[in-house]
Amino acid sequence: MKKTDMPQYFQSILIAVDTAIFSVIDGALRVLLIRIGSGPYKGKWALPGGLVRPEESLDQAAERVLSEKAGVDDIYLEQLYAFGGVDRDVRGRSVSVAYFALVNSDRCLPATIEYYSDIAWYDTAKLPKLAFDHTKIVSVGIDRLRNKLGYSNIAYGLLPKEFTLTELQTAYEIILGHELDKRNFRKKILDIDLVKETGKIRKSGQSRPARLYSFSERKPKIVDVL
Amino acid sequence: MKKTDMPQYFQSILIAVDTAIFSVIDGALRVLLIRIGSGPYKGKWALPGGLVRPEESLDQAAERVLSEKAGVDDIYLEQLYAFGGVDRDVRGRSVSVAYFALVNSDRCLPATIEYYSDIAWYDTAKLPKLAFDHTKIVSVGIDRLRNKLGYSNIAYGLLPKEFTLTELQTAYEIILGHELDKRNFRKKILDIDLVKETGKIRKSGQSRPARLYSFSERKPKIVDVL
Repeated sequence: MKKTDMPQYFQSILIAVDTAIFSVIDGALRVLLIRIGSGPYKGKWALPGGLVRPEESLDQAAERVLSEKAGVDDIYLEQLYAFGGVDRDVRGRSVSVAYFALVNSDRCLPATIEYYSDIAWYDTAKLPKLAFDHTKIVSVGIDRLRNKLGYSNIAYGLLPKEFTLTELQTAYEIILGHELDKRNFRKKILDIDLVKETGKIRKSGQSRPARLYSFSERKPKIVDVL
Repeated sequence: MKKTDMPQYFQSILIAVDTAIFSVIDGALRVLLIRIGSGPYKGKWALPGGLVRPEESLDQAAERVLSEKAGVDDIYLEQLYAFGGVDRDVRGRSVSVAYFALVNSDRCLPATIEYYSDIAWYDTAKLPKLAFDHTKIVSVGIDRLRNKLGYSNIAYGLLPKEFTLTELQTAYEIILGHELDKRNFRKKILDIDLVKETGKIRKSGQSRPARLYSFSERKPKIVDVL
């Protein structure tokens, strides 16, 4: 098959991946950012990202970029959205396929900084102006995260294997940015079979013993509402 | 800003858009397909698609492609997923950003066939082998559609402005591919405030008069379960 069947002269759009990794740390929803060390965006904070190589799929590129640029491995990344605004990069036209994940910060300590001048877990409520359209990507990521709390088990990546419903509710509240009614929350979470009882009880100090729960499924699942 | 800041030599990946337009016609969930008229995929059925032009965003490209290649305009397209498998196109490496929509077939009658040898609404249960990775794209589209029925108002594009709950349930059942319990369906649909009563009643022939409903919102909305 001739390569010339494809009108390559027609395009000069680059394809990149960016990764938005969220966690709840110190009572805040945070996102992992790196600080760009050179080029037109020098000094700006951005999501870990990079160009897709000819031999790798989008998923593989996202995993490689996150590993190389932020020292983060073994995270289940979910595709978030493709961003293709014509002005998103001052260096030229590009499309970025963004990936996101919600993780327990214990699993995700930035180990190496090879490409960038700094790396940090930024509070999403206090973000600096990010490079490229990354402010938009983070915003779309937070929206998706909040929506998915209601119709999927996405929080399983954040919580330990066993947890109390109070701990689950606290994580939900931090991500949603508002309080939830305790009784209503418990009813809905149990109605959609998101979690199940482990049969174990946790006793701690003064407080009442609390039942421990685990996620019904610890791989990505859309809740069956119908 | 020098264009050479971006390592263009590094990539020769083309970026395309493909559109998966679904409707319910004659009791079946159908997708709009075109038949390719030339090249290595000649004779194969595929989703309407094409390369993104340098001056247009991804959304604009999807709208243009659907209009040019299938004669379909004025549809709200939602981004589905970016497909970037290394072997997805025998002509060379490409990434496709797929869009999808669920429409009322009245709004969507293929008018012109300029680029392709044929166009048809195919029953998704009886698809031929499609060109590229389009079988996969349709499959991901159907999964998303089915999931979104449970947590969004996506069906508003399919139903007329006023409808009975029986009509809504029938549409849901056709898309989901299985029957739903009537009482349970009604309870859940009303619980999540998906639809509201119009106060009107439809009387038709022998059957019992039925209450007419409309969607609470006729633009895309994720249902707030929490």
